[in-house]
Amino acid sequence: MAKITVIGAGAMGSAFTKPIADNGNDVRLWGSPLDNSIIDALKAGRDHPKHKYPLSKNISFFYHHELAEALHDADAIIMAITSDALGDVFEQIVPYLKPGILIGSVTKGFNYNKAGEIVLLPDILEERLPDKLKHQVDFVFVAGPCKAVEVLWGVPSSVTYASTNITAAEKLRSFAETDVYNVDITTDVIGTEICAAMKNAYCVGLGMAEGFPQQKNNFLHKNTKGSLFTYAVAEMGIFAKALGGTLGPVLGLPGIGDLELTGEAGRNRTLGEAIGNGLSASQAIAKMKENDITVEGYPAIKFGYLLMKTMETEGKIRSSQMPLLSGLYDILYNDAAGYESIKKLVRLCTAANISNRKL
Amino acid sequence: MAKITVIGAGAMGSAFTKPIADNGNDVRLWGSPLDNSIIDALKAGRDHPKHKYPLSKNISFFYHHELAEALHDADAIIMAITSDALGDVFEQIVPYLKPGILIGSVTKGFNYNKAGEIVLLPDILEERLPDKLKHQVDFVFVAGPCKAVEVLWGVPSSVTYASTNITAAEKLRSFAETDVYNVDITTDVIGTEICAAMKNAYCVGLGMAEGFPQQKNNFLHKNTKGSLFTYAVAEMGIFAKALGGTLGPVLGLPGIGDLELTGEAGRNRTLGEAIGNGLSASQAIAKMKENDITVEGYPAIKFGYLLMKTMETEGKIRSSQMPLLSGLYDILYNDAAGYESIKKLVRLCTAANISNRKL
Repeated sequence: MAKITVIGAGAMGSAFTKPIADNGNDVRLWGSPLDNSIIDALKAGRDHPKHKYPLSKNISFFYHHELAEALHDADAIIMAITSDALGDVFEQIVPYLKPGILIGSVTKGFNYNKAGEIVLLPDILEERLPDKLKHQVDFVFVAGPCKAVEVLWGVPSSVTYASTNITAAEKLRSFAETDVYNVDITTDVIGTEICAAMKNAYCVGLGMAEGFPQQKNNFLHKNTKGSLFTYAVAEMGIFAKALGGTLGPVLGLPGIGDLELTGEAGRNRTLGEAIGNGLSASQAIAKMKENDITVEGYPAIKFGYLLMKTMETEGKIRSSQMPLLSGLYDILYNDAAGYESIKKLVRLCTAANISNRKL
Repeated sequence: MAKITVIGAGAMGSAFTKPIADNGNDVRLWGSPLDNSIIDALKAGRDHPKHKYPLSKNISFFYHHELAEALHDADAIIMAITSDALGDVFEQIVPYLKPGILIGSVTKGFNYNKAGEIVLLPDILEERLPDKLKHQVDFVFVAGPCKAVEVLWGVPSSVTYASTNITAAEKLRSFAETDVYNVDITTDVIGTEICAAMKNAYCVGLGMAEGFPQQKNNFLHKNTKGSLFTYAVAEMGIFAKALGGTLGPVLGLPGIGDLELTGEAGRNRTLGEAIGNGLSASQAIAKMKENDITVEGYPAIKFGYLLMKTMETEGKIRSSQMPLLSGLYDILYNDAAGYESIKKLVRLCTAANISNRKL
């Protein structure tokens, strides 16, 4: 039995308590300052407000001012904080870290590091680690097709744990794997994390195909969606390799699997659908902001595009290899027309002849 | 301008006339003996009965007894006949073939060759070619995420043309490609055709995940579907390589792309959903037979499984590498319980740790 503290009581953090509690670990769930009402409900034995579903019985709950208690003697910490707040919250935790502790993260995306460069989230955590802890703690990153509420329901699921230290990934797997929560492991953190970040971006494009019938005689555009899906996976592969990763996670659960899941429903798809229906991106974004809806894919397109552009100046990639990302950036940030742009992108991407790759 | 005869006036053959007519070719559409009423309607200038949509203006239509006229002086023939009838119809055409003619095929699946072995459709055509025509005609096989009616509507689409002779694939592309019907080409016929055949099989499994909510508290099982999708692509890759193909088409339009499209809707998915709802496969199949619905994925699971088993005896593959196909066979042909089987399969497939492949 391990002592495991989950940092963040939102959708994914709360759901992660289920498999680790099912494994008999001592599970503590810490709520951020934004999670007070969630912790109230959980301490009172009520359902998790976001999931409308109860958590496991044997979990301890902590308010944000109880961080020290929540982390006391922990063997593992699971970061489940939004990508923009991840660094700040991790800084609060650092003073409590001891050598040998395992740090997992279910957060996905990009952010700026302290030097102002766009990086994947592993870098955000690692740069905050004090020198004396470097190589003394291991990070494990979680990705794959995994809606939080379904984990809580006990739906058969599989995820990938990525760590440069495979032993750390195995250890977290031993804490978490159950007969319905299945874990594969990889040493390719970069390939895993680029998928985790970019699938939201590409999903906006898939959503557009779902929206096209409304402006085109109710004609379904499933062919367009199937093409875009294929090209999204191919571009994630190009991005992963240019960054130093491999195709393994791209063609595994973090890439193919999570893109399939994300394309089924959700906010990224909804944003795309609005553009597919004929709104300009500015109009679609304004509408979502009015309703206080944040869409991960929107900043992911910008982060991904800017990172690609930076890498191009470094000679690591050519943006012509990633026409879909460039096109999505044009649609989302320059109000390029959705339908005509996607039509051209399918053409451009097909010209790359990816089915003839020698793999 | 080329003279192109499409053999079969069903959904896909009729739709294929659109891009080749848009390119200004002399297009002839020949109806099989089952297509008489379709040819009646088309000759009378009415919509295609299956598509409820008109074909292009400049197409000639032929009844089955007008085969000679339909094939007169043809530069290319496109086979668009169901997989079980493909060989018989091709035998009727063989006497009209001249060296240099290009033979395309949009039919997908497996069948038995004359020796009683399970083969992909290229072998069904090639074994019927008389010696004097061997190496005198080229075959091009069409696959990818492409619903027929959407091609007719002019929806942006992309497909793969596969031929061992890349020049033949390029030639057919030059006849067919438009600004919305995009063609990528590959020399990997085996990889392309194994995907074209197997995506229907795996789609039955994806459908089950869509059906599970009905027997499980209305809990969505999108995580399960995302996992199965990933593992289906991985197994198609293993199958393709064992048969002598590559991963190119599997990770391109014929594999990832067409599986995504096929998983969105259709009969394969409907069969899976019925089993996911709690019916045994026998019950689900009986129900579909009552309604005279044929499901390509059902025989594809058997053909694929038996082919894998034969290859196993030849030392070309181990069935333990393809647990998902074996499991689907058990569900569909031995009435193994759908939910418990899929739960076990997600577990088994995850254990293969595909996200860590070195690609």
